[in-house]
Amino acid sequence: MKTEAAVAFKAGAPLSIETVDLEGPKAGEVLVEIKATGICHTDAFTLSGNDPEGLFPAILGHEGAGVVLEVGEGVTSLAPGDHVIPLYTPECRQCEYCLHPKTNLCQAIRSTQGAGLMPDGTSRFSIGGEKLHHYMGCSTFANHTVLPEIALAKIRRDAPFDKVCYIGCGVTTGVGAVVYDAKVEPGSTVVVFGLGGIGLNVVQGARMVGADRIIGVDINDSRRGLAETFGMTDFINPRGMKPEDVAPHIVEMTGGGADYSFECIGNTTTMRQALECCHKGWGESTIIGVAGAGEEISTRPFQLVTGRVWRGTAFGGARGRTDVPKIVDWYMEGKINIDDLITHKLSLGQINEGFDLMHEGESIRSVVVY
Amino acid sequence: MKTEAAVAFKAGAPLSIETVDLEGPKAGEVLVEIKATGICHTDAFTLSGNDPEGLFPAILGHEGAGVVLEVGEGVTSLAPGDHVIPLYTPECRQCEYCLHPKTNLCQAIRSTQGAGLMPDGTSRFSIGGEKLHHYMGCSTFANHTVLPEIALAKIRRDAPFDKVCYIGCGVTTGVGAVVYDAKVEPGSTVVVFGLGGIGLNVVQGARMVGADRIIGVDINDSRRGLAETFGMTDFINPRGMKPEDVAPHIVEMTGGGADYSFECIGNTTTMRQALECCHKGWGESTIIGVAGAGEEISTRPFQLVTGRVWRGTAFGGARGRTDVPKIVDWYMEGKINIDDLITHKLSLGQINEGFDLMHEGESIRSVVVY
Repeated sequence: MKTEAAVAFKAGAPLSIETVDLEGPKAGEVLVEIKATGICHTDAFTLSGNDPEGLFPAILGHEGAGVVLEVGEGVTSLAPGDHVIPLYTPECRQCEYCLHPKTNLCQAIRSTQGAGLMPDGTSRFSIGGEKLHHYMGCSTFANHTVLPEIALAKIRRDAPFDKVCYIGCGVTTGVGAVVYDAKVEPGSTVVVFGLGGIGLNVVQGARMVGADRIIGVDINDSRRGLAETFGMTDFINPRGMKPEDVAPHIVEMTGGGADYSFECIGNTTTMRQALECCHKGWGESTIIGVAGAGEEISTRPFQLVTGRVWRGTAFGGARGRTDVPKIVDWYMEGKINIDDLITHKLSLGQINEGFDLMHEGESIRSVVVY
Repeated sequence: MKTEAAVAFKAGAPLSIETVDLEGPKAGEVLVEIKATGICHTDAFTLSGNDPEGLFPAILGHEGAGVVLEVGEGVTSLAPGDHVIPLYTPECRQCEYCLHPKTNLCQAIRSTQGAGLMPDGTSRFSIGGEKLHHYMGCSTFANHTVLPEIALAKIRRDAPFDKVCYIGCGVTTGVGAVVYDAKVEPGSTVVVFGLGGIGLNVVQGARMVGADRIIGVDINDSRRGLAETFGMTDFINPRGMKPEDVAPHIVEMTGGGADYSFECIGNTTTMRQALECCHKGWGESTIIGVAGAGEEISTRPFQLVTGRVWRGTAFGGARGRTDVPKIVDWYMEGKINIDDLITHKLSLGQINEGFDLMHEGESIRSVVVY
């Protein structure tokens, strides 16, 4: 079949809107009509050429929602008409990782996904006979795409695509880090470094689970108002502070430090601050942001020996097929707010404007509606 | 009263056997006759002068066992004749730390203990009218010492002092790190860096809780035989390997990495190896060793984002008054082996030989018997 897609032909160039060829689903695969897709920093990172694993030409996009149109042989958990969210972290429920209680990093299709291919080692996308790579197993910048059954979360039909697409990455990454990885308890003091699309979801995740104090740290004062509506109780703008003074300042203002901190920027200096602002004895810091290639974090081991814990999270520790439908429910029940995070709605033809808005810091999330 | 003690008059000098003056217990304090004491690396570290918090003159020693002779006003949990193990990490059961489920770092008497004093800000030891500092709240290198009630674990009376004194530090630090902090599960793969007095206790702790594979890493081949009797299943001598090759080697030999690793050396390079040899998705590394002042650990944050956890432990996460008596039981029931770790028995007059044996790598643990 033919479908419309924003194609990344090469690094550093704008996406090009094209009519591309899409093969139907093979065994274990599902054809999905994407109804909406968010534009995430990860798409921009790959498009920039700085992603060492980036492949071109490709159809980017990994934060979508849509409807099943057709299922391949052997697909049992999905049927045409089902509403779905694509999962860049699949959930096969059979691999060593899925069967381990501590991780969500299903490895079932990791090698082919990393190579921009479907599990059988081929691509379903092409243009003029030239192969196009899939991206993060999703390629939601195409109006239609094919995914493995294990990479689709079935969600309720009354959830609006143009909102819940954001659960495909940002919402789950932030809320999930609080709920599934850090397991923040009611009454906790939480510090969030970076109040962008991930950090604001950490803030509201912390509010949802009953944190008492939620301290946001951002060099952009304009994020304060929105963060407060999401549950932030205290704001720190560290501009003008020495990097080594930030953690002691937080320890002092909290009377001992954070029970939980989250780094949502990808900066190794703030990662260290996030660890060191944690409370002696029990504070746990979770890295969410992705640092530049080759960058390293460091601290004195005394920080850990005296009881702090340093961990990280990917896709919020969520097991996609199991947990994403629950997060959709939380949104539909009003436990979390997505509407106010989606600041811009665009057509596919306007997708490059969405990247510009992100780079300019104008948007929290731009969503393309097909 | 008068008692015999090995006094550290100044950094870098041998201990001096002296008759010192000891005041009786004040309110909340207990007079203990020390029956046996281990000689630990921490004593040597302070004696060397490299410990920035070291105070002189002092009576060192923190790994003891003895008998209560007299209790001060208000002491209710102990009585003369009780057998006890002094605790450099006390357990007041009332402070914010004791009441938190995730830490054993009771802070009730931290400031005075760090200053080499009893909780009322004075010392009970003196010689010729000159004050001697207490050490780690214990000073077990004196035949008699005074401790706060909250810093004494009451143990069964049939436990031999010359063995269970080692539970006052090394045994609890190693076994406890496995049981209380890392919480190693049966079937786990465990990697232990450093097969000295702490590492061997990690090995046997891992065996006790049912680990399947226990891999020891040490540059001293002579540690292999003893470690095997304590439960080690595989041995790696990393001498001749590049530092950056050690973790990949372990990941390969374990088919993915360690479920749990423990650093028992105090070397920041092996701390990094210990983290990076952990299994993607769930491997947790615990730092036990104490690094030199100012040294830092580092890694790529990707190690954490892909599911590894970096933590540390002090006194094995044990709450001394609650857990130390249990560890004594484990020894008496044959679940852990202490006898084979105590390689040398000395009199107080031979205490400096004990330090020599440790520095030469000749001993696992030397114990002074009064």
